[in-house]
Amino acid sequence: MQKITILIHCKDQKGIIAAVTTFIAKVEGNITYIDQHVELDQNVFFMRLECELTNHRITIENLKTDFEQTIATDFEMSWDLYNQEQKPKMALFVSKYDHCLFDILGRYSAGELNVDIPVIISNHNDLRSIAERFDIPFHCVPFTKDNKEEGEKHQIELLKRFQINFIVLARYMQIITPNLISLYENKIINIHHSFLPAFPGAKPYHSAFKRGVKIIGATSHYVTEELDEGPIIEQDIARVSHIHSVDDFIMKGRDLERIVLARAIKLHAERKTMVYGNKTVVFS
Amino acid sequence: MQKITILIHCKDQKGIIAAVTTFIAKVEGNITYIDQHVELDQNVFFMRLECELTNHRITIENLKTDFEQTIATDFEMSWDLYNQEQKPKMALFVSKYDHCLFDILGRYSAGELNVDIPVIISNHNDLRSIAERFDIPFHCVPFTKDNKEEGEKHQIELLKRFQINFIVLARYMQIITPNLISLYENKIINIHHSFLPAFPGAKPYHSAFKRGVKIIGATSHYVTEELDEGPIIEQDIARVSHIHSVDDFIMKGRDLERIVLARAIKLHAERKTMVYGNKTVVFS
Amino acid sequence: MQKITILIHCKDQKGIIAAVTTFIAKVEGNITYIDQHVELDQNVFFMRLECELTNHRITIENLKTDFEQTIATDFEMSWDLYNQEQKPKMALFVSKYDHCLFDILGRYSAGELNVDIPVIISNHNDLRSIAERFDIPFHCVPFTKDNKEEGEKHQIELLKRFQINFIVLARYMQIITPNLISLYENKIINIHHSFLPAFPGAKPYHSAFKRGVKIIGATSHYVTEELDEGPIIEQDIARVSHIHSVDDFIMKGRDLERIVLARAIKLHAERKTMVYGNKTVVFS
Amino acid sequence: MQKITILIHCKDQKGIIAAVTTFIAKVEGNITYIDQHVELDQNVFFMRLECELTNHRITIENLKTDFEQTIATDFEMSWDLYNQEQKPKMALFVSKYDHCLFDILGRYSAGELNVDIPVIISNHNDLRSIAERFDIPFHCVPFTKDNKEEGEKHQIELLKRFQINFIVLARYMQIITPNLISLYENKIINIHHSFLPAFPGAKPYHSAFKRGVKIIGATSHYVTEELDEGPIIEQDIARVSHIHSVDDFIMKGRDLERIVLARAIKLHAERKTMVYGNKTVVFS
Repeated sequence: MQKITILIHCKDQKGIIAAVTTFIAKVEGNITYIDQHVELDQNVFFMRLECELTNHRITIENLKTDFEQTIATDFEMSWDLYNQEQKPKMALFVSKYDHCLFDILGRYSAGELNVDIPVIISNHNDLRSIAERFDIPFHCVPFTKDNKEEGEKHQIELLKRFQINFIVLARYMQIITPNLISLYENKIINIHHSFLPAFPGAKPYHSAFKRGVKIIGATSHYVTEELDEGPIIEQDIARVSHIHSVDDFIMKGRDLERIVLARAIKLHAERKTMVYGNKTVVFS
Repeated sequence: MQKITILIHCKDQKGIIAAVTTFIAKVEGNITYIDQHVELDQNVFFMRLECELTNHRITIENLKTDFEQTIATDFEMSWDLYNQEQKPKMALFVSKYDHCLFDILGRYSAGELNVDIPVIISNHNDLRSIAERFDIPFHCVPFTKDNKEEGEKHQIELLKRFQINFIVLARYMQIITPNLISLYENKIINIHHSFLPAFPGAKPYHSAFKRGVKIIGATSHYVTEELDEGPIIEQDIARVSHIHSVDDFIMKGRDLERIVLARAIKLHAERKTMVYGNKTVVFS
Repeated sequence: MQKITILIHCKDQKGIIAAVTTFIAKVEGNITYIDQHVELDQNVFFMRLECELTNHRITIENLKTDFEQTIATDFEMSWDLYNQEQKPKMALFVSKYDHCLFDILGRYSAGELNVDIPVIISNHNDLRSIAERFDIPFHCVPFTKDNKEEGEKHQIELLKRFQINFIVLARYMQIITPNLISLYENKIINIHHSFLPAFPGAKPYHSAFKRGVKIIGATSHYVTEELDEGPIIEQDIARVSHIHSVDDFIMKGRDLERIVLARAIKLHAERKTMVYGNKTVVFS
Repeated sequence: MQKITILIHCKDQKGIIAAVTTFIAKVEGNITYIDQHVELDQNVFFMRLECELTNHRITIENLKTDFEQTIATDFEMSWDLYNQEQKPKMALFVSKYDHCLFDILGRYSAGELNVDIPVIISNHNDLRSIAERFDIPFHCVPFTKDNKEEGEKHQIELLKRFQINFIVLARYMQIITPNLISLYENKIINIHHSFLPAFPGAKPYHSAFKRGVKIIGATSHYVTEELDEGPIIEQDIARVSHIHSVDDFIMKGRDLERIVLARAIKLHAERKTMVYGNKTVVFS
């Protein structure tokens, strides 16, 4: 029995759900999960569907062709169909902060993340020993302002060599180039250490402390060319008070960063996110 | 244009969603919201669907008949179909505590609750002036252990006279009789001032204080014959610490009770809850 | 037995706590609560102390004189000493939104707020009937851009006549003039319907919706001349997702506004807040 | 400059704070943090104080003697005085679950925990490789129902050999013997995977699922002879709904267990917890 996930979006029209569910019934699929959303402002329809295929004579390739011809063309759909057994390949970009890396690798080793991590890429060697501890290839791609392009070229080679599906910036602290962003559109996940859109840019904990907020946050989002402005996947917060110093903010923030990034990775890996305009639909 | 809500549950089978959505397409309905859930343990299928009917020649009565004959019989469905414009009639049962009453009447007056409140019933006269302040008929039905049956009879007369659809116990503090429960099955909402199943019964804040918990809670649930054991609709919590006395617990708890009860009322009034076994499906 | 609250701040120096607590012991006071905070950046010391005076021959007036001469002068303290029985007088400023007003008056009637509310002031007559329902004098002070000064003059007369100690803007929607702010420095509490500093200014829910945030918030703060930039007293948040419309944000936000404003009122009324620079110390 | 932490509890009496703070002033100490609590029911006074000693001629040993003679005897205090530089030694007890172990060792390696971890003790060999990955001695002490006493003897030898100050049960799944509990009174921290006192004992996620709760939790507490009844240090919760299976509860619970246990370890290691009766005072 094969388990598949289908993601669809298209202009909202009458009869889409009926057409899709009738199609699944026709191919003897059993729908185990269906969720949909209509974005009224833009009149866009989104759907996520999981089903089990019990008829062994139907291959995924045939199914795709059939779906494209029977349904997708008529409704002018953008769509993807995933075999749930196939784990996406994820590259980790890190720099010098180790707490998110420890958290992700701990979860990965404990079997919590439905991904493969074939490579960790960094512009520094500081975290190499952690990668080795978890037996994951570590590639240091150092660069300066002057040879950033070369560095990016090297990064892209590695991403291709390891057939990477999506990238996670685990406190990577470097700005991603437009070229790399375009190669991985809505497939690069960043963790920002503030409750965006409050305190974008550098040193958000210092700014939050200065402003005297009573709650701090962290935000995971897809990377776009506008710094810290990409579609938000997940956010969470923690309470602070006058007794907390900037260092306390930073320490509490580490827990937020860990958990908010881990949730975003899981959502993306399980194909539960869809992007439209500058927002996400998160089917969870 | 009429807006309707359909709630369905039945044994899980292939093709239900396809059949229902095809039916809606056939009657020129436009589905604006669909959500479903399969309870795997019991193999039960649940669905909530909102749609707009643009064809003015189709009446809700015809639609119901058509649905019953075309779909519901085949799949052996239990189902309800509501006209969204028709507000349910809600009776408030109160005793001496006023904070939930103030909150509900404030929200009602501010237009937040999609209900009519034709009557407030109490075993005491203490809160009569509040009801009068909000211009809602207040009926005092006092009773003792010895004439509880008579009291119940009077309550049921009032519920019939005012054509009550569901009952809210706003810190009513009396045990509802099995007879009344059976008349309003899954239609009596209680607010319990603890994080059930911790601290059932009386004086939960005192028990929580004694146990030294760091979090207190409140729970809204449908009333069943087993005290504090009915299907849970909504829960929420607040942090406490060693600095808080029992009185502080009670004061913090009042905010929890208000908000958790208000949320349950909204969910029920908008037909977003379904009960199965001793649990709820909450489509929100 | 008299119960008093003392608030102190001064330059941080050795021996302050010892001096103060020794003073209290000398006058036969029993300290029931003490909390202190040192703001390291600015080297400022803050203290809040509650105590019971068992010696009936000591009047509060004598105590104040004694404290000033024995302690406060030496340490160059700014300080206040309150009789806990004396409730502060609070004015409510409202406009057309009714949900915060209902919530505050409900809590007030239920005895939850340690304040007197001798007057409600509004620039419109819309909410007059609510004030009347709760038997609180309602004064409509309308004004336009052109006669704002006159309006303010009338407001200040009312504040004086009713001997108002602090002002609460319950979704008042008007900018307070610098003159009035200076008369009630750190004594005007506003509720802003966003998680400041995100989305300052008008229509924050619309901005939050557009940005695609996964969490919305509300912020209560003291009013200063910089709009939405005053010292934050309390914040809270609620989760939202792609299924929520702007109207859903607004409805969820109403609950946040109610609760965050009510908490700020309680903290201020119980003298648990102190302001320094643009921040608050909240002893809770 | 030495930094010290003092913990005190005794019968509540007038003048304690004055006496202690005057003592600190006398030895030229600079109080950087002071917090106190009076448990009214039992009339017990608790205090936590941090201070810097600038006079290099005063040793901690002298200070202790001086404090005992000048203050502690008079007030019949129980007290401890810690040098903040001295990290407590913590033993980890594990069994087969790896997620809490990964989390603790990741935090430890990242420098977040103010402890030394000289040994990991387990009744199984399953997690040995993780300990080795982090270079921490791993001792397998297997035992059966029949030779539990021997096993305990071996455990205690290890605890002595490594001079262990406190023990953390990271999902250890075995009941600790009364003898070991008495040796480490209020020094053994357990993580229970439910919101105690709801769902004590085994399989709490299954019970929570069956009950249909809308919120699950985790609880860290000191181990006493009554199973799952010891003083609670910290709790936290996560929302669940009808869409979540028992496996989803377990997966969400892992995050709760990690974070609630890590917070308890930090609080204990920084001497921020005090136990009285069956409760904790947590100065944070």
